[in-house]
Amino acid sequence: MALKTLSAKAAASLDRDLMSTGAFSIDQLMELAGLSVSQAVYRVHPVTQGSRVLVAVGPGNNGGDGLVAARHLRHYGYLPTVYYPKRSKNDLYQRLVKQLEDLDVPFVDDFPAALESTDHVVDAIFGFSFSGEVREPFPAVIQAMAKTKVPVTSVDAPSSWNIEEGPPKSGTGSSFHPDVLVSLTAPKPLVKFFSGRHFIGGRFVTPAIAKKYGFDLPEYEGIDQVVEIGPEGHKL
Amino acid sequence: MALKTLSAKAAASLDRDLMSTGAFSIDQLMELAGLSVSQAVYRVHPVTQGSRVLVAVGPGNNGGDGLVAARHLRHYGYLPTVYYPKRSKNDLYQRLVKQLEDLDVPFVDDFPAALESTDHVVDAIFGFSFSGEVREPFPAVIQAMAKTKVPVTSVDAPSSWNIEEGPPKSGTGSSFHPDVLVSLTAPKPLVKFFSGRHFIGGRFVTPAIAKKYGFDLPEYEGIDQVVEIGPEGHKL
Repeated sequence: MALKTLSAKAAASLDRDLMSTGAFSIDQLMELAGLSVSQAVYRVHPVTQGSRVLVAVGPGNNGGDGLVAARHLRHYGYLPTVYYPKRSKNDLYQRLVKQLEDLDVPFVDDFPAALESTDHVVDAIFGFSFSGEVREPFPAVIQAMAKTKVPVTSVDAPSSWNIEEGPPKSGTGSSFHPDVLVSLTAPKPLVKFFSGRHFIGGRFVTPAIAKKYGFDLPEYEGIDQVVEIGPEGHKL
Repeated sequence: MALKTLSAKAAASLDRDLMSTGAFSIDQLMELAGLSVSQAVYRVHPVTQGSRVLVAVGPGNNGGDGLVAARHLRHYGYLPTVYYPKRSKNDLYQRLVKQLEDLDVPFVDDFPAALESTDHVVDAIFGFSFSGEVREPFPAVIQAMAKTKVPVTSVDAPSSWNIEEGPPKSGTGSSFHPDVLVSLTAPKPLVKFFSGRHFIGGRFVTPAIAKKYGFDLPEYEGIDQVVEIGPEGHKL
């Protein structure tokens, strides 16, 4: 079977469905998406291999998933550090930040410096709604993630990649190839250009929604909130 | 060490702290509490031992945790059925119901009849804010749970029990002894009277909150959202 993917437009429509007819709140969905990301990190980088995780947080929903993941990672015993340069004024994001502050999770301003002393990176900068140019201050952050030897887990999309076309032909992100990708709800077309470990998360999609958007529900095991899949979409 | 417990008054205060200074939304907390309950059920009653789970849902927050747990159980492959006779008009509860309807989870009106054809029961009728009399239609439901041979998992408190004093001396609930209890955030004093399997859930409490309320954070394993403890409070 071929891996079925969800275009940027379809992913946006699916999200709207979840929050309208699906009756989910953004708080719920972000909590479960961030939980998925934290479980994938736990799987690829057990805390015994180094507890320091640097989470790069973008200005939108992808960043919110990263903030939630950082909180769960802290509860698992990791020592996350958060880089969050463009903060949303939205109440939800401010609350997610406060929840991290209450766990003494440090927020840092210098991403390249923080990268020098971490064991793993979570790229939660841009998700399926990204298009166009990478705005400041993120070009240097993405370049640093492209160069580092520290493994990087991207949330939903390697940041700066075009959702349909994959890595940009030149400039920022053209040489950014994260080690791990956590696709939320369903993979996006960019996975064709991705060759690392691939997880699906977001265990809240109903069979009816999967059918409407033409993909199969992932075969999650037990109580897992993520499942690792191969290039053809089969469970690993 | 002795098991540290949280009075009804302290539990209410802790909940207020989580949602005020702690900056959590009720959606988030209920999602994580219900997830804890679903994981405890998965632990004590694997889906291979029978997939039918009857969830008895009360009118308040304890019921909301049950609605969330039912959804996660459905995603794990169980076939939950929900008894929810006194529905909240609150938007959150209506959304939690819609999320279950979208998964084709049936809602039933006749609890004793549903009890005849289930493999496990989740008691999410009353939690730490319960006091006084059990109102209709719940006395017969609690009596049925007291009599059944089907194992029962109670959420936060065996419904009808006094949070400090345990089972009522006579009448409804006096002979209700569930098999499993999932204490959320911390055990309540009623655990002195409980002799089944005991789990702690609610992996969102900060060290500062645990310190303020005089209990130790549970020693969760890995990514688990519940931990089973013994009568003295040690991890099993």
